[in-house]
Amino acid sequence: MPTLCDWLRIPSIGVDPAHHPDVRRSADWLATQLKQDGWPEVEVWDEGPALPAVFACWPAEDPDAPTVLVYGHHDVQPVDPVGKWEHPPFEPRVVGEEIRGRGASDDKGQVAMHLLAVKAHLAATKQSAPSVTLKLFVEGEEESGSPHFRKTLEDRGERLECDLVVFTDTALHERDAPTVNTGQRGVLGAEIVFEGGTEDVHSGRAGGAIPNPATALAKLIAALHDDDGRIQLPHFYDDVREPSAKEREDYGSLPFDERDWLKRNGGGAQKTHGEPGYTTYERLWVRPTAEVNGISGGYTGPGFKTIIPASATAKISFRLVPDQHPDRTTAQLRRFVEDHTPDGITATVTIRGEGVPPYAISPDDPANATVKKAVEMAFDQPVRFARAGGSGPAAVLQQKLGVPLVYLGATLPDDRVHAPNERVVVPLLLKGAEAAAHLWRMLAEAEIAKRVP
Amino acid sequence: MPTLCDWLRIPSIGVDPAHHPDVRRSADWLATQLKQDGWPEVEVWDEGPALPAVFACWPAEDPDAPTVLVYGHHDVQPVDPVGKWEHPPFEPRVVGEEIRGRGASDDKGQVAMHLLAVKAHLAATKQSAPSVTLKLFVEGEEESGSPHFRKTLEDRGERLECDLVVFTDTALHERDAPTVNTGQRGVLGAEIVFEGGTEDVHSGRAGGAIPNPATALAKLIAALHDDDGRIQLPHFYDDVREPSAKEREDYGSLPFDERDWLKRNGGGAQKTHGEPGYTTYERLWVRPTAEVNGISGGYTGPGFKTIIPASATAKISFRLVPDQHPDRTTAQLRRFVEDHTPDGITATVTIRGEGVPPYAISPDDPANATVKKAVEMAFDQPVRFARAGGSGPAAVLQQKLGVPLVYLGATLPDDRVHAPNERVVVPLLLKGAEAAAHLWRMLAEAEIAKRVP
Repeated sequence: MPTLCDWLRIPSIGVDPAHHPDVRRSADWLATQLKQDGWPEVEVWDEGPALPAVFACWPAEDPDAPTVLVYGHHDVQPVDPVGKWEHPPFEPRVVGEEIRGRGASDDKGQVAMHLLAVKAHLAATKQSAPSVTLKLFVEGEEESGSPHFRKTLEDRGERLECDLVVFTDTALHERDAPTVNTGQRGVLGAEIVFEGGTEDVHSGRAGGAIPNPATALAKLIAALHDDDGRIQLPHFYDDVREPSAKEREDYGSLPFDERDWLKRNGGGAQKTHGEPGYTTYERLWVRPTAEVNGISGGYTGPGFKTIIPASATAKISFRLVPDQHPDRTTAQLRRFVEDHTPDGITATVTIRGEGVPPYAISPDDPANATVKKAVEMAFDQPVRFARAGGSGPAAVLQQKLGVPLVYLGATLPDDRVHAPNERVVVPLLLKGAEAAAHLWRMLAEAEIAKRVP
Repeated sequence: MPTLCDWLRIPSIGVDPAHHPDVRRSADWLATQLKQDGWPEVEVWDEGPALPAVFACWPAEDPDAPTVLVYGHHDVQPVDPVGKWEHPPFEPRVVGEEIRGRGASDDKGQVAMHLLAVKAHLAATKQSAPSVTLKLFVEGEEESGSPHFRKTLEDRGERLECDLVVFTDTALHERDAPTVNTGQRGVLGAEIVFEGGTEDVHSGRAGGAIPNPATALAKLIAALHDDDGRIQLPHFYDDVREPSAKEREDYGSLPFDERDWLKRNGGGAQKTHGEPGYTTYERLWVRPTAEVNGISGGYTGPGFKTIIPASATAKISFRLVPDQHPDRTTAQLRRFVEDHTPDGITATVTIRGEGVPPYAISPDDPANATVKKAVEMAFDQPVRFARAGGSGPAAVLQQKLGVPLVYLGATLPDDRVHAPNERVVVPLLLKGAEAAAHLWRMLAEAEIAKRVP
């Protein structure tokens, strides 16, 4: 995929304003490529406030054919710690079966996979247009939490109208255990600041006689989970939908070796740990969590400084599952912080944007069954359903457009996305492209079959 | 005190190796000054590993007169945040009654006070030598926690032999409420590191399925105090000596206004807080504490990063009171950390040096009664006993030399020591010098009285 390498050379780091011109270049690059590939309608949406997105449409010849909207993103993660890369992150390399570079897997590689799928589909069907009307929507703010996504959907809803969304920003379970994803967790980020005073105080002078905000914040964090690891926000679990027996069975049949899983996912963790009564996959995919992402306060340099910190800060994120909602979790958290703020401490809670709602589609949904069949044909092996522990704008997209949303991805969990030395496995992208081509054909055939009296 | 200003121009910041030559210059300056003042024996102890200390001796004419050793230090605190100083910290200024500059109060000013006392004493008594044999020991590592203090006492014990130590590194309670200090808390600094893995992990990928070291550390910190604020290390309070009824009465009779105390000591804290059943002064002076001095882990920059931190670190210091000992507290802490380290977390506890033991002398000790009388004569008002919440090498000095140790200080708690714009109030130093001169005279008289059959 030499063209993918060209795209990967553009450092479209959306979270860094210095790279916003690169995000624009990246959108322009994609638009140019789509035009070269023959897409008749190509637009760069660059009116702000969102970073540039690319929209394209290729109508089917049959005006009654279904419309499929493929969602992906072209912005990429920052590259820190850059010293841990084996090569410059924006000078992609082909090493054996892999393409290495920032964005190779997340998400330029998967968008390129769909571009390739169109070519394969047209070649295989000897058509000059795809069997379904294809729409492509590639945003530039996914790694920033898609802050203007709702606004874009408001403004551009008509252009995005479709019968099915294919969301291409999730991975296969393993190379030897291909899966179809059926959901992503939501996420809510919060920063809690506990202020005791306006400046640090020498602990010989006031130690034992004024509140210590770091101690108070530790007590709040400690109270966030009970001894079993269950989250203690009141009513937190009220809306949690249990997975079906069939889903649990699918998850249970996926290969799992604790040591191997830890090695690939645990960042050096020594053992798994989590809510009793659930497997590791269930903890990751169908159970909500509250994680301290960062904590700071007082003197944190080398050596010692005997002070009482003026303030302490914790960044905490919640991963949410259907049918939880970030708004309700926000209210629960604010109440919890209020209840755990001792006298003499002032608490401030800052929520990151609106949060990302969770999304899941039933494995029994007809669209999902078709996706599974397409992936089985491409990979030539049995495919199970799984979910993703991460988050994305799927729920917002699905709710706004009011049609089913399915997932089609061909990357791997150990592609080192968001980390140094990101890579993508090219043979998997090719199979993913084949699966997409099958999917479009089958969706068109199913539509035609429906019309047969 | 123009000579004090000369001394304050030397930036003898002992904790900063770049300033070690200045610590040496500071010792040399003091030695030169002592010689000029007529002290017959002056030595700079500069053989390492301790930073240079100054020793001087001025024998009394009466070979049977008691020997008094005055302890102080000539190293000073760093000056950060330097931007908050109203003038360069090492360009001292005389403003009204004050001398302002780093070290003015802590502790060069108080050492200078004793030099002045000798001159006053000789002038008043018309003697060519002091009534008692005076020894002066001014170390250069106090602000570094006196790491080589024990070794110096081992090596130089004979030179330091005396009948009484006068420790001059504590303050009066208030300008209008002069006090004689009777003790300092000890201190034990510990750093606790909780490691879960070797690198931060994306929380979408492992959130809920591996241990979070920041959460685990928060639980440990939360468990350090019960809801009443009592410290939960097993046997922590076993050795705590309760103050006498007389001491509590003295502390209770000192002026205390919560708002005013917070304003001057609380760094902007909104209210006092501490162990039930004790006043603020008792919490500060006769009760031990455990304070989180700093906490850090994971992502602490602006915005959000949804990770599980690889590790989290807390710096915790304990202030200890007689008859606690840093060694016993260390053992209790190590055990406590062991008991609160969950599966999958590796804990490391690092102790700062050997810790500083607490020290207190009874208000009823005869030496202390004499100090009180000397201060009352100089200040011409009633003097009460108090203690200090901070720490110093008094206990080590007292134990090694095996003689009583009393305190004589004439600075103020709001001299902004360890902070920008440190100052000393000159009229108080002059009264302190007068008190010292009285003290020496009275000690000599008491010794002579003893000899009268």
